[in-house]
Amino acid sequence: MKQLVEELLKGNRRAAARLITLVENEDRQKTELLQAIYPHTGNAYVVGITGAPGAGKSSLVDQLLQEIRAEGLSVGIIAVDPTSPFSGGAILGDRIRMQDHALDQEVFIRSMGTRGSLGGLSRSTREAIQVLDAFGKDLILVETVGVGQSEVDIVRTADTTIVLLTPASGDSVQTLKAGIMEIADLFVINKADLPGTERTVAEINMMLDMKNSASWRPAVIPTVSIRGEGIEELWTALKEHRLYLETSGQLAEVRLQRVRRELTEQVEYLVKNRVWAEVKDKFVLEELIEKIARREKDPYSSACELLDSINFFESKS
Amino acid sequence: MKQLVEELLKGNRRAAARLITLVENEDRQKTELLQAIYPHTGNAYVVGITGAPGAGKSSLVDQLLQEIRAEGLSVGIIAVDPTSPFSGGAILGDRIRMQDHALDQEVFIRSMGTRGSLGGLSRSTREAIQVLDAFGKDLILVETVGVGQSEVDIVRTADTTIVLLTPASGDSVQTLKAGIMEIADLFVINKADLPGTERTVAEINMMLDMKNSASWRPAVIPTVSIRGEGIEELWTALKEHRLYLETSGQLAEVRLQRVRRELTEQVEYLVKNRVWAEVKDKFVLEELIEKIARREKDPYSSACELLDSINFFESKS
Repeated sequence: MKQLVEELLKGNRRAAARLITLVENEDRQKTELLQAIYPHTGNAYVVGITGAPGAGKSSLVDQLLQEIRAEGLSVGIIAVDPTSPFSGGAILGDRIRMQDHALDQEVFIRSMGTRGSLGGLSRSTREAIQVLDAFGKDLILVETVGVGQSEVDIVRTADTTIVLLTPASGDSVQTLKAGIMEIADLFVINKADLPGTERTVAEINMMLDMKNSASWRPAVIPTVSIRGEGIEELWTALKEHRLYLETSGQLAEVRLQRVRRELTEQVEYLVKNRVWAEVKDKFVLEELIEKIARREKDPYSSACELLDSINFFESKS
Repeated sequence: MKQLVEELLKGNRRAAARLITLVENEDRQKTELLQAIYPHTGNAYVVGITGAPGAGKSSLVDQLLQEIRAEGLSVGIIAVDPTSPFSGGAILGDRIRMQDHALDQEVFIRSMGTRGSLGGLSRSTREAIQVLDAFGKDLILVETVGVGQSEVDIVRTADTTIVLLTPASGDSVQTLKAGIMEIADLFVINKADLPGTERTVAEINMMLDMKNSASWRPAVIPTVSIRGEGIEELWTALKEHRLYLETSGQLAEVRLQRVRRELTEQVEYLVKNRVWAEVKDKFVLEELIEKIARREKDPYSSACELLDSINFFESKS
């Protein structure tokens, strides 16, 4: 494991791939691994891209990749599909894309699907970002399918979040989840050669007008990704948003938030494991559960009793 | 509060509505309330219905309601919309439906939207079910929009789960989330007057053939809900599934599982609150978070240190 981390820090692609697999599989050594790479993280800039299936996310990312590579930045791409049980690059579309960039050592693409819960996916996505960050990637693109709450959680890890829409009615602004509006730093209207583009752009702008004027107003950028139109504008807008975050001090604030969440999760993870180990040591839970099911007890006072039994409250007060 | 619970148990509709609002708003007295009603729960049969927007869920539920009411059973309906910030019956469609049944004292309809997180919605849905269960409803229908993982979590509370599809391509069996297949006890193909119905039915049956033969094979029922076609068959299938669960002992097993989850959540909720109160009492977390952000520390060993500081590990061993 130590050797794998060393190889990662040296830039070994296979080590990166293996380490992501380890975190994804909830390997026993995961915490140790994350701890080892942590001092080498915090340098990558993370961009999240979310949009409905068919909105052209993959081709947009491919085009954007060319702009980014033209400036000499190295890139990690994490393609998250919450609906897919596959991971590790098994998704067909990503296989094809990987071939395109197979010879470019500065691009690393990885697919992640749901092995377990969505919560788990959100967590392992963040951990994969850590690995690619320590791996030395300048920019990490996290693309996720769909615009539901779960995707919002995944994308929340990003420094800049791009919400991808099309002029098609299904993606109309009215159908946007409430949460999506709040997380968007940039809107991209892809397939902008289709009718309805102007209306969609206008609707979003109207909505942005109604919002309390924050200091950053999201740009709304029409693109035709399969023809590469608007990609340069998108890349410029991305850099502007990054500059804004850096100069306004917001980037530091966002990253503190992220650390806060990471620490919180880790504390709760340790506490939970410990408490359950203790409880199960002293208690035959099944008996209690059957009593509750028969309504002889209730779950609320039973929970207090369990914690009393391991002196959880007493030892603390 | 005590009085509200008494009114609930007497069958007062306004008390039911108020109590659901209390759990939804995370009222301070929530635990006390849930504890008070718990002995009066466990009698209702819970049916979950999930399907994509536009699949005809509402009209299906309305039709089903007539069958259920014809047998003299009282009904609670919880309409969950994870995409809506509204709750308390504010959704237009449900207002209209409520008027239809406004004079029927045995029907209680309630809408719930996301106030906070989806996790919170899943929790408050379960708590609303508890309230309606104690309220004395024989059958509780939980309908939820969409077929994502979050909806799966919400629907998992149900004794019988109905997955609603249409012959339209977007709902094709291939696009079904992996998790949805596993939770379906009954499939309804609504809008079965549209072309493609037979193919959809055949696809689902093929998929069911491939599955390891469990003892219950989900029925696949074509309906045209706006004309009331197939509703009687659906109601019969529902009753068959319930009978199967009851006679096979699976209902008891499912309900034990639910109690286990409830107890687990309650224990973890108490533990978390307590640990954070202690930690925040002794620690200036912000300093630590800034150190972690500067990579002077890592979140993993910091979490252990925090727990050491409140003697969390020591006092337990």
